Amino acid sequence: MRISDLSRLSGTPVGTIKYYLREGLLPPGRQLGATLSLYGDEHLRRLRLIRALTARGGLSIAATRDVLTAMDEPLDPLATLGVVHYALPTPVDAAETDAVDEQAPRVDELLRTMGWDVSENSPHRRALAASLMDLGRIGADYRTEDLLPYAELAASAAKLDLDRVQRLDDPEDRFKLAEHAAVVVLLLEPVLAVLRRLAQENETRRRGAWARPGDTPDA
Amino acid sequence: MRISDLSRLSGTPVGTIKYYLREGLLPPGRQLGATLSLYGDEHLRRLRLIRALTARGGLSIAATRDVLTAMDEPLDPLATLGVVHYALPTPVDAAETDAVDEQAPRVDELLRTMGWDVSENSPHRRALAASLMDLGRIGADYRTEDLLPYAELAASAAKLDLDRVQRLDDPEDRFKLAEHAAVVVLLLEPVLAVLRRLAQENETRRRGAWARPGDTPDA
Repeated sequence: MRISDLSRLSGTPVGTIKYYLREGLLPPGRQLGATLSLYGDEHLRRLRLIRALTARGGLSIAATRDVLTAMDEPLDPLATLGVVHYALPTPVDAAETDAVDEQAPRVDELLRTMGWDVSENSPHRRALAASLMDLGRIGADYRTEDLLPYAELAASAAKLDLDRVQRLDDPEDRFKLAEHAAVVVLLLEPVLAVLRRLAQENETRRRGAWARPGDTPDA
Repeated sequence: MRISDLSRLSGTPVGTIKYYLREGLLPPGRQLGATLSLYGDEHLRRLRLIRALTARGGLSIAATRDVLTAMDEPLDPLATLGVVHYALPTPVDAAETDAVDEQAPRVDELLRTMGWDVSENSPHRRALAASLMDLGRIGADYRTEDLLPYAELAASAAKLDLDRVQRLDDPEDRFKLAEHAAVVVLLLEPVLAVLRRLAQENETRRRGAWARPGDTPDA
Protein backbone atom coordinates (compact mmCIF):
# COMPACT_ATOMS: atom_id res chain seq x y z
CA MET A 1 0.00 0.00 0.00
CA ARG A 2 0.99 3.64 -0.42
CA ILE A 3 1.76 5.94 2.49
CA SER A 4 -1.67 7.55 2.04
CA ASP A 5 -3.35 4.15 2.59
CA LEU A 6 -1.15 3.50 5.62
CA SER A 7 -2.24 6.89 6.97
CA ARG A 8 -5.94 6.20 6.43
CA LEU A 9 -5.90 2.66 7.87
CA SER A 10 -3.89 3.62 10.94
CA GLY A 11 -5.48 7.02 11.54
CA THR A 12 -2.01 8.60 11.57
CA PRO A 13 -1.25 11.77 9.54
CA VAL A 14 1.22 11.30 6.66
CA GLY A 15 3.59 13.85 8.21
CA THR A 16 3.71 11.83 11.41
CA ILE A 17 4.44 8.60 9.49
CA LYS A 18 7.31 10.36 7.68
CA TYR A 19 8.63 11.52 11.05
CA TYR A 20 8.57 7.95 12.38
CA LEU A 21 10.43 6.80 9.22
CA ARG A 22 13.12 9.48 9.68
CA GLU A 23 13.49 8.61 13.37
CA GLY A 24 13.89 4.93 12.55
CA LEU A 25 10.79 3.80 14.44
CA LEU A 26 9.27 2.44 11.26
CA PRO A 27 11.39 0.48 8.74
CA PRO A 28 11.49 1.95 5.21
CA GLY A 29 9.01 0.70 2.62
CA ARG A 30 9.89 -0.98 -0.66
CA GLN A 31 11.08 1.87 -2.86
CA LEU A 32 9.57 1.78 -6.35
CA GLY A 33 10.67 5.19 -7.57
CA ALA A 34 11.98 8.56 -6.42
CA THR A 35 8.65 9.43 -4.77
CA LEU A 36 6.90 6.08 -4.42
CA SER A 37 7.39 3.54 -1.66
CA LEU A 38 5.09 0.66 -0.85
CA TYR A 39 4.26 -0.53 2.65
CA GLY A 40 2.88 -3.80 3.98
CA ASP A 41 0.77 -5.14 6.83
CA GLU A 42 3.86 -5.30 9.04
CA HIS A 43 4.14 -1.50 8.72
CA LEU A 44 0.49 -1.06 9.66
CA ARG A 45 0.88 -3.31 12.69
CA ARG A 46 4.02 -1.59 13.85
CA LEU A 47 2.45 1.83 13.31
CA ARG A 48 -0.47 0.86 15.55
CA LEU A 49 1.97 -0.33 18.20
CA ILE A 50 3.92 2.96 18.00
CA ARG A 51 0.68 4.91 18.42
CA ALA A 52 -0.33 2.78 21.37
CA LEU A 53 3.05 3.17 23.08
CA THR A 54 3.29 6.93 22.53
CA ALA A 55 -0.31 8.16 22.70
CA ARG A 56 -1.67 5.81 25.40
CA GLY A 57 1.52 4.63 27.07
CA GLY A 58 3.11 8.06 27.31
CA LEU A 59 6.48 6.84 25.98
CA SER A 60 8.85 9.34 24.38
CA ILE A 61 10.08 8.77 20.82
CA ALA A 62 13.50 7.74 22.16
CA ALA A 63 11.95 5.27 24.64
CA THR A 64 9.68 3.89 21.92
CA ARG A 65 12.72 3.32 19.71
CA ASP A 66 14.44 1.42 22.55
CA VAL A 67 11.40 -0.82 22.96
CA LEU A 68 11.04 -1.49 19.24
CA THR A 69 14.77 -2.23 18.89
CA ALA A 70 14.52 -4.70 21.74
CA MET A 71 11.62 -6.38 19.98
CA ASP A 72 13.75 -6.99 16.91
CA GLU A 73 16.29 -8.95 18.95
CA PRO A 74 15.74 -12.68 19.43
CA LEU A 75 14.82 -12.38 23.09
CA ASP A 76 12.69 -14.55 25.28
CA PRO A 77 9.29 -12.82 25.37
CA LEU A 78 9.47 -12.43 29.13
CA ALA A 79 12.89 -10.82 28.80
CA THR A 80 11.31 -8.24 26.51
CA LEU A 81 9.22 -7.23 29.50
CA GLY A 82 12.40 -5.99 31.15
CA VAL A 83 13.27 -3.76 28.23
CA VAL A 84 9.81 -2.25 28.22
CA HIS A 85 9.94 -1.74 31.98
CA TYR A 86 13.14 0.27 31.91
CA ALA A 87 11.97 2.38 28.96
CA LEU A 88 8.83 3.52 30.76
CA PRO A 89 8.55 7.16 31.77
CA THR A 90 8.83 7.64 35.53
CA PRO A 91 9.02 11.39 35.87
CA VAL A 92 10.42 12.72 39.11
CA ASP A 93 10.80 16.49 39.37
CA ALA A 94 14.53 17.26 39.74
CA ALA A 95 13.70 19.81 42.46
CA GLU A 96 12.15 17.02 44.51
CA THR A 97 14.98 14.49 44.31
CA ASP A 98 15.89 14.76 47.99
CA ALA A 99 12.29 14.51 49.19
CA VAL A 100 11.81 11.41 47.03
CA ASP A 101 15.03 9.83 48.26
CA GLU A 102 13.75 10.14 51.82
CA GLN A 103 11.02 7.64 50.96
CA ALA A 104 13.48 5.03 49.63
CA PRO A 105 13.71 3.12 52.94
CA ARG A 106 9.93 2.66 52.93
CA VAL A 107 10.08 1.20 49.42
CA ASP A 108 12.94 -1.10 50.50
CA GLU A 109 10.92 -2.26 53.49
CA LEU A 110 7.87 -3.07 51.38
CA LEU A 111 9.90 -5.02 48.81
CA ARG A 112 11.72 -6.89 51.59
CA THR A 113 8.49 -7.75 53.38
CA MET A 114 6.97 -9.03 50.12
CA GLY A 115 10.20 -10.93 49.35
CA TRP A 116 10.30 -9.35 45.90
CA ASP A 117 13.46 -9.61 43.83
CA VAL A 118 13.79 -6.24 42.09
CA SER A 119 16.98 -4.58 40.83
CA GLU A 120 18.43 -1.75 42.91
CA ASN A 121 18.43 0.19 39.63
CA SER A 122 14.74 -0.22 38.84
CA PRO A 123 13.21 3.16 37.97
CA HIS A 124 9.98 1.98 39.57
CA ARG A 125 11.51 2.11 43.04
CA ARG A 126 11.79 5.89 42.62
CA ALA A 127 8.35 6.14 41.06
CA LEU A 128 6.86 4.42 44.11
CA ALA A 129 8.87 6.67 46.44
CA ALA A 130 7.53 9.75 44.59
CA SER A 131 3.94 8.54 44.94
CA LEU A 132 4.38 7.86 48.66
CA MET A 133 5.78 11.37 49.04
CA ASP A 134 2.72 12.81 47.26
CA LEU A 135 0.37 10.93 49.54
CA GLY A 136 2.25 11.98 52.68
CA ARG A 137 2.14 15.64 51.66
CA ILE A 138 -1.61 15.76 51.72
CA GLY A 139 -1.73 13.86 54.98
CA ALA A 140 -2.52 10.40 53.61
CA ASP A 141 0.22 8.26 55.06
CA TYR A 142 0.28 4.75 53.74
CA ARG A 143 2.45 2.59 55.96
CA THR A 144 3.96 -0.71 54.85
CA GLU A 145 1.11 -2.61 56.50
CA ASP A 146 -1.43 -0.51 54.56
CA LEU A 147 0.36 -1.19 51.29
CA LEU A 148 0.87 -4.93 51.77
CA PRO A 149 -2.67 -6.01 50.75
CA TYR A 150 -2.33 -3.91 47.57
CA ALA A 151 1.06 -5.46 46.89
CA GLU A 152 -0.53 -8.92 47.22
CA LEU A 153 -3.12 -7.94 44.59
CA ALA A 154 -0.33 -6.61 42.35
CA ALA A 155 1.51 -9.92 42.71
CA SER A 156 -1.63 -11.79 41.61
CA ALA A 157 -2.02 -9.46 38.62
CA ALA A 158 1.64 -9.99 37.64
CA LYS A 159 1.14 -13.76 37.66
CA LEU A 160 -1.88 -13.42 35.34
CA ASP A 161 0.16 -11.10 33.09
CA LEU A 162 3.10 -13.46 32.75
CA ASP A 163 0.93 -16.56 32.32
CA ARG A 164 -0.62 -14.91 29.32
CA VAL A 165 2.69 -13.90 27.74
CA GLN A 166 4.06 -17.42 28.23
CA ARG A 167 0.91 -19.04 26.85
CA LEU A 168 1.29 -16.97 23.68
CA ASP A 169 4.85 -18.18 23.07
CA ASP A 170 5.14 -18.81 19.35
CA PRO A 171 8.64 -19.15 17.84
CA GLU A 172 7.15 -18.39 14.41
CA ASP A 173 6.24 -14.85 15.33
CA ARG A 174 8.53 -13.29 17.88
CA PHE A 175 7.52 -9.74 17.04
CA LYS A 176 3.96 -10.58 17.95
CA LEU A 177 5.19 -11.99 21.25
CA ALA A 178 7.23 -8.92 22.01
CA GLU A 179 4.19 -6.82 21.17
CA HIS A 180 2.19 -8.74 23.68
CA ALA A 181 4.83 -8.27 26.34
CA ALA A 182 4.56 -4.52 25.80
CA VAL A 183 0.78 -4.73 25.88
CA VAL A 184 0.81 -6.63 29.13
CA VAL A 185 3.13 -4.15 30.78
CA LEU A 186 1.72 -0.97 29.42
CA LEU A 187 -1.67 -1.05 27.73
CA LEU A 188 -3.32 -3.17 30.36
CA GLU A 189 -2.54 -0.52 32.98
CA PRO A 190 -5.44 1.80 32.04
CA VAL A 191 -7.74 -1.24 31.86
CA LEU A 192 -6.90 -2.18 35.44
CA ALA A 193 -7.27 1.42 36.63
CA VAL A 194 -10.72 1.67 35.06
CA LEU A 195 -11.80 -1.70 36.44
CA ARG A 196 -10.91 -0.42 39.91
CA ARG A 197 -12.96 2.74 39.37
CA LEU A 198 -15.96 0.71 38.22
CA ALA A 199 -15.52 -1.64 41.19
CA GLN A 200 -15.39 1.37 43.53
CA GLU A 201 -18.74 2.60 42.24
CA ASN A 202 -20.26 -0.84 42.67
CA GLU A 203 -18.83 -1.22 46.17
CA THR A 204 -19.99 2.27 47.20
CA ARG A 205 -23.52 1.48 45.97
CA ARG A 206 -23.43 -1.87 47.75
CA ARG A 207 -22.64 -0.02 50.99
CA GLY A 208 -25.56 2.30 50.36
CA ALA A 209 -23.56 5.49 50.05
CA TRP A 210 -23.77 6.36 46.36
CA ALA A 211 -25.69 9.61 46.14
CA ARG A 212 -24.15 11.24 43.19
CA PRO A 213 -23.80 11.83 39.48
CA GLY A 214 -24.88 9.41 36.82
CA ASP A 215 -28.17 8.59 38.44
CA THR A 216 -31.58 9.66 37.26
CA PRO A 217 -33.83 10.96 40.07
CA ASP A 218 -35.74 7.69 40.51
CA ALA A 219 -32.71 5.43 40.13
CA MET B 1 1.65 33.66 56.28
CA ARG B 2 2.18 35.83 53.20
CA ILE B 3 1.67 34.55 49.66
CA SER B 4 5.46 34.30 49.29
CA ASP B 5 5.60 31.87 52.25
CA LEU B 6 2.68 29.89 50.83
CA SER B 7 4.60 29.67 47.55
CA ARG B 8 7.80 28.49 49.21
CA LEU B 9 6.15 25.90 51.49
CA SER B 10 3.99 24.43 48.72
CA GLY B 11 6.55 24.67 45.92
CA THR B 12 3.98 26.55 43.81
CA PRO B 13 4.91 29.78 41.96
CA VAL B 14 3.17 32.94 43.23
CA GLY B 15 1.63 33.51 39.80
CA THR B 16 0.05 30.05 39.90
CA ILE B 17 -1.37 30.69 43.39
CA LYS B 18 -2.89 33.96 42.15
CA TYR B 19 -4.41 32.06 39.23
CA TYR B 20 -5.99 29.52 41.61
CA LEU B 21 -7.36 32.43 43.70
CA ARG B 22 -8.90 34.08 40.63
CA GLU B 23 -10.38 30.77 39.47
CA GLY B 24 -11.92 30.17 42.89
CA LEU B 25 -9.98 26.98 43.60
CA LEU B 26 -8.40 28.56 46.64
CA PRO B 27 -10.44 30.72 49.07
CA PRO B 28 -9.19 34.30 49.52
CA GLY B 29 -6.83 35.09 52.39
CA ARG B 30 -7.48 37.55 55.22
CA GLN B 31 -7.01 40.96 53.63
CA LEU B 32 -4.88 43.28 55.77
CA GLY B 33 -4.31 46.07 53.25
CA ALA B 34 -4.49 46.92 49.56
CA THR B 35 -1.57 44.64 48.75
CA LEU B 36 -1.31 42.35 51.76
CA SER B 37 -3.33 39.21 52.47
CA LEU B 38 -2.51 36.53 55.00
CA TYR B 39 -3.00 32.81 54.48
CA GLY B 40 -3.26 29.88 56.88
CA ASP B 41 -2.50 26.19 57.08
CA GLU B 42 -5.85 25.40 55.45
CA HIS B 43 -4.62 27.28 52.35
CA LEU B 44 -1.41 25.29 52.32
CA ARG B 45 -3.25 22.00 52.63
CA ARG B 46 -5.72 22.87 49.93
CA LEU B 47 -2.92 24.07 47.65
CA ARG B 48 -1.15 20.72 48.03
CA LEU B 49 -4.38 18.93 47.19
CA ILE B 50 -4.88 21.10 44.08
CA ARG B 51 -1.33 20.32 42.95
CA ALA B 52 -1.88 16.62 43.53
CA LEU B 53 -5.17 16.59 41.61
CA THR B 54 -3.87 18.61 38.66
CA ALA B 55 -0.21 17.62 38.35
CA ARG B 56 -0.43 13.93 39.31
CA GLY B 57 -4.11 13.23 38.76
CA GLY B 58 -4.36 14.97 35.41
CA LEU B 59 -7.55 16.86 36.33
CA SER B 60 -8.41 20.06 34.48
CA ILE B 61 -8.93 23.29 36.44
CA ALA B 62 -12.70 23.01 35.89
CA ALA B 63 -12.79 19.39 37.09
CA THR B 64 -10.63 20.30 40.10
CA ARG B 65 -13.09 23.06 40.98
CA ASP B 66 -15.98 20.55 40.80
CA VAL B 67 -14.17 18.19 43.14
CA LEU B 68 -13.25 20.93 45.63
CA THR B 69 -16.81 22.32 45.60
CA ALA B 70 -18.14 18.85 46.32
CA MET B 71 -15.74 18.57 49.24
CA ASP B 72 -17.18 21.70 50.81
CA GLU B 73 -20.65 20.16 50.88
CA PRO B 74 -21.65 18.09 53.88
CA LEU B 75 -21.56 14.79 52.01
CA ASP B 76 -20.93 11.32 53.22
CA PRO B 77 -17.24 10.65 52.50
CA LEU B 78 -18.11 7.71 50.30
CA ALA B 79 -20.51 9.89 48.32
CA THR B 80 -17.61 12.24 47.64
CA LEU B 81 -16.03 9.35 45.79
CA GLY B 82 -18.80 9.62 43.22
CA VAL B 83 -18.10 13.28 42.59
CA VAL B 84 -14.43 12.60 42.11
CA HIS B 85 -15.21 9.69 39.79
CA TYR B 86 -17.34 11.74 37.43
CA ALA B 87 -14.81 14.61 37.38
CA LEU B 88 -11.98 12.37 36.23
CA PRO B 89 -10.60 12.86 32.73
CA THR B 90 -11.54 9.99 30.43
CA PRO B 91 -10.39 11.21 27.05
CA VAL B 92 -11.89 9.52 24.03
CA ASP B 93 -10.88 10.92 20.66
CA ALA B 94 -14.05 12.27 18.98
CA ALA B 95 -12.95 10.68 15.68
CA GLU B 96 -13.05 7.29 17.36
CA THR B 97 -16.49 7.51 18.96
CA ASP B 98 -18.03 4.87 16.71
CA ALA B 99 -15.15 2.42 17.15
CA VAL B 100 -15.40 2.85 20.92
CA ASP B 101 -19.18 2.39 20.92
CA GLU B 102 -18.71 -0.97 19.18
CA GLN B 103 -16.99 -2.23 22.32
CA ALA B 104 -19.87 -1.22 24.62
CA PRO B 105 -21.53 -4.68 24.57
CA ARG B 106 -18.29 -6.25 25.81
CA VAL B 107 -18.19 -3.81 28.72
CA ASP B 108 -21.85 -4.57 29.49
CA GLU B 109 -21.14 -8.30 29.44
CA LEU B 110 -18.20 -7.95 31.84
CA LEU B 111 -20.19 -5.80 34.29
CA ARG B 112 -23.14 -8.22 34.10
CA THR B 113 -20.93 -11.25 34.67
CA MET B 114 -19.32 -9.56 37.67
CA GLY B 115 -22.73 -8.48 38.94
CA TRP B 116 -21.49 -4.91 39.29
CA ASP B 117 -23.98 -2.10 39.83
CA VAL B 118 -22.65 0.82 37.77
CA SER B 119 -24.63 3.71 36.27
CA GLU B 120 -25.34 3.61 32.54
CA ASN B 121 -23.89 7.14 32.52
CA SER B 122 -20.55 6.27 34.08
CA PRO B 123 -17.72 7.77 31.99
CA HIS B 124 -15.61 4.76 32.94
CA ARG B 125 -17.72 2.45 30.77
CA ARG B 126 -16.48 4.39 27.74
CA ALA B 127 -12.94 4.54 29.07
CA LEU B 128 -12.92 0.74 29.35
CA ALA B 129 -14.41 0.41 25.86
CA ALA B 130 -11.66 2.67 24.49
CA SER B 131 -8.94 0.59 26.15
CA LEU B 132 -10.41 -2.66 24.79
CA MET B 133 -10.44 -1.09 21.33
CA ASP B 134 -6.76 -0.14 21.68
CA LEU B 135 -5.85 -3.67 22.68
CA GLY B 136 -7.84 -5.22 19.83
CA ARG B 137 -6.16 -2.96 17.28
CA ILE B 138 -2.73 -4.35 17.99
CA GLY B 139 -4.05 -7.89 18.00
CA ALA B 140 -4.33 -8.38 21.76
CA ASP B 141 -7.92 -9.45 22.23
CA TYR B 142 -8.98 -9.69 25.83
CA ARG B 143 -12.24 -11.59 26.06
CA THR B 144 -14.58 -11.40 29.03
CA GLU B 145 -13.07 -14.60 30.47
CA ASP B 146 -9.58 -13.06 30.21
CA LEU B 147 -10.73 -9.91 32.00
CA LEU B 148 -12.67 -11.59 34.80
CA PRO B 149 -9.65 -12.47 36.99
CA TYR B 150 -8.47 -8.86 36.71
CA ALA B 151 -11.96 -7.63 37.59
CA GLU B 152 -11.87 -9.86 40.70
CA LEU B 153 -8.59 -8.21 41.74
CA ALA B 154 -10.11 -4.77 41.11
CA ALA B 155 -13.07 -5.69 43.31
CA SER B 156 -10.68 -6.66 46.11
CA ALA B 157 -8.80 -3.37 45.70
CA ALA B 158 -12.06 -1.39 45.82
CA LYS B 159 -13.01 -3.08 49.10
CA LEU B 160 -9.64 -2.10 50.61
CA ASP B 161 -10.12 1.45 49.31
CA LEU B 162 -13.56 1.89 50.82
CA ASP B 163 -12.65 0.24 54.12
CA ARG B 164 -9.97 2.86 54.54
CA VAL B 165 -12.22 5.80 53.72
CA GLN B 166 -14.87 4.52 56.15
CA ARG B 167 -12.30 3.88 58.88
CA LEU B 168 -11.17 7.51 58.60
CA ASP B 169 -14.69 8.86 59.08
CA ASP B 170 -14.33 11.84 61.36
CA PRO B 171 -17.26 14.29 61.61
CA GLU B 172 -14.86 16.90 62.99
CA ASP B 173 -12.95 17.20 59.78
CA ARG B 174 -15.01 16.55 56.70
CA PHE B 175 -12.59 18.26 54.35
CA LYS B 176 -9.92 15.83 55.42
CA LEU B 177 -12.28 12.96 54.72
CA ALA B 178 -13.15 14.29 51.30
CA GLU B 179 -9.44 14.69 50.64
CA HIS B 180 -8.95 11.06 51.49
CA ALA B 181 -11.74 9.99 49.19
CA ALA B 182 -9.98 11.83 46.35
CA VAL B 183 -6.70 10.27 47.36
CA VAL B 184 -8.14 6.80 47.35
CA VAL B 185 -9.69 7.23 43.93
CA LEU B 186 -6.94 9.12 42.24
CA LEU B 187 -3.55 9.26 43.89
CA LEU B 188 -3.45 5.59 44.75
CA GLU B 189 -3.75 4.71 41.07
CA PRO B 190 -0.07 5.34 40.22
CA VAL B 191 0.90 3.45 43.38
CA LEU B 192 -0.99 0.37 42.22
CA ALA B 193 0.40 0.65 38.69
CA VAL B 194 3.96 0.80 40.02
CA LEU B 195 3.38 -2.09 42.43
CA ARG B 196 2.26 -4.20 39.46
CA ARG B 197 5.41 -3.26 37.52
CA LEU B 198 7.62 -4.18 40.46
CA ALA B 199 5.70 -7.45 40.89
CA GLN B 200 6.17 -8.19 37.18
CA GLU B 201 9.94 -7.86 37.51
CA ASN B 202 9.94 -10.14 40.54
CA GLU B 203 7.72 -12.71 38.83
CA THR B 204 9.84 -12.64 35.65
CA ARG B 205 13.01 -13.23 37.69
CA ARG B 206 11.29 -16.01 39.62
CA ARG B 207 10.53 -17.71 36.29
CA GLY B 208 14.18 -17.36 35.30
CA ALA B 209 13.59 -15.11 32.31
CA TRP B 210 14.94 -11.73 33.44
CA ALA B 211 17.92 -11.00 31.25
CA ARG B 212 17.83 -7.32 30.98
CA PRO B 213 18.54 -3.84 32.26
CA GLY B 214 19.24 -2.92 35.83
CA ASP B 215 21.54 -5.84 36.43
CA THR B 216 25.28 -5.65 36.83
CA PRO B 217 27.14 -8.29 34.74
CA ASP B 218 27.64 -10.69 37.64
CA ALA B 219 24.15 -10.25 39.09
